Amino acid sequence: MKTIAIYGELGSFTEQAALNYFGKAKLLPNRYISEVFDAVESGSADLGIVPIENTIEGAVTQTYDQLLGLRINIVAETILRINHCLVANPGVKLSNVKRVYSIQQALGQCKEYLQKLRVETVPFYDTAGSVKTIKEQGMEDAAAVASARAAKIYGMQILAKDIETNKHNFTRFLIVSRKGNLSKGDKTSLVFTVRNNPGSLYDALRSFADSNIDLTYIQSRPVIGKPWVYNFYVDFKGDKNDKNVKDALRLLKKSTKSIKILGSYKKAQTRRV
Amino acid sequence: MKTIAIYGELGSFTEQAALNYFGKAKLLPNRYISEVFDAVESGSADLGIVPIENTIEGAVTQTYDQLLGLRINIVAETILRINHCLVANPGVKLSNVKRVYSIQQALGQCKEYLQKLRVETVPFYDTAGSVKTIKEQGMEDAAAVASARAAKIYGMQILAKDIETNKHNFTRFLIVSRKGNLSKGDKTSLVFTVRNNPGSLYDALRSFADSNIDLTYIQSRPVIGKPWVYNFYVDFKGDKNDKNVKDALRLLKKSTKSIKILGSYKKAQTRRV
Repeated sequence: MKTIAIYGELGSFTEQAALNYFGKAKLLPNRYISEVFDAVESGSADLGIVPIENTIEGAVTQTYDQLLGLRINIVAETILRINHCLVANPGVKLSNVKRVYSIQQALGQCKEYLQKLRVETVPFYDTAGSVKTIKEQGMEDAAAVASARAAKIYGMQILAKDIETNKHNFTRFLIVSRKGNLSKGDKTSLVFTVRNNPGSLYDALRSFADSNIDLTYIQSRPVIGKPWVYNFYVDFKGDKNDKNVKDALRLLKKSTKSIKILGSYKKAQTRRV
Repeated sequence: MKTIAIYGELGSFTEQAALNYFGKAKLLPNRYISEVFDAVESGSADLGIVPIENTIEGAVTQTYDQLLGLRINIVAETILRINHCLVANPGVKLSNVKRVYSIQQALGQCKEYLQKLRVETVPFYDTAGSVKTIKEQGMEDAAAVASARAAKIYGMQILAKDIETNKHNFTRFLIVSRKGNLSKGDKTSLVFTVRNNPGSLYDALRSFADSNIDLTYIQSRPVIGKPWVYNFYVDFKGDKNDKNVKDALRLLKKSTKSIKILGSYKKAQTRRV
């Protein structure tokens, strides 16, 4: 059985995504996204699973920054519909709740509901970790934003369901490995930095078009220590061994300072709400 | 004297950027970035100033999302070198500090220093707001990551200076107004969404190259309620009334679903460390 490093405690959305994707597997919870990558790079886990993007909150920047790791390859992606619940200790009434714990993104996704409740929001390291802490400390005036599964795992009470503002709430997760994919993919991710010349970003992007490659996504992140220099992350259709992708990479080398192919993998499908 | 809505309390980095840029002005502190935009849109402030990007932490996504507001124009930008201090109540020793408050970004920028201290980090709404709260509640076991100016304003003690991991730490701020700039700029920002066709992102980007426009930055943010559809924010050299920019906009209209010109303004210079 494979060992999978996951972000967050048991009951986190990443655990749910891992269960959906892998079925039976040995899951290793981690408090930080960087620890999932450490586990994969060091070999203490076979694979890692981390959130990369949410349709309300946008890119998970900690994940983007970790993808630069030398031994990290993306081998798959999976999409999960996010349903938030308000979770508290058994016996706690909604009117007792003064503080609500969760990760910043989840609090943001439930902002309208939480504003009506007139509670203080407390950013915390994990959704399921919030439930766990509220239970362990026996808090009577606090609740967590987390999944129904987290409530069940920790034997807690659900005070409200479907509290997210927008129901089109999906998170896309990446599965990362030390080894690249052997099977053919229909989607490739890579990251590049451009030379510091006028037009160099456009030249880089033109490499894809000149090779008839459909760019589907661009995200930028700063290069630490080099103000106003960026890593550009792109997703496009095709496998890294396709002829036109190889052509594009040859062109791209001319206009960029560095390129890292993050991986080719099967594009995940979104089940509509 | 103009009224300027700023993000954060007096003593925040945004206040420092406002003082550097405007000299004398009436500053209105705001707890949330969205409140700065509300003040500008409603007319209760003449201008607003908000962080848009830090060279370590990347894009300030709350600001990007607010730029979509109908009456919002970017009229200027300014860059500030960020120096973090560890700030506590007078008489508190470094060895007493168990918890450190600040905004998530500032805690992230000082991660190495804080990890060595072996303290708990507490994400809070503002750097200067953390100093203010620690003072008001007379906390003896807590400190804040904030500016030297925040320490001075609230009569607090600086326990350590220059605690940021990376010294190439700059934040770029935008100045926003209901009215666009009348004077000519050398930098323009706009946001567009593409049609849902293959190649449409590239077609949009080609509009700039075909008009000889040097694209310097791209950032993407999700369109809320439309999974996997994005707003793409671009910065480029030139003024919105330049002939080649007008050409590019005409081309861009063909391949995009919507365009909003955010403003043309003078590019800010970075003073090196």
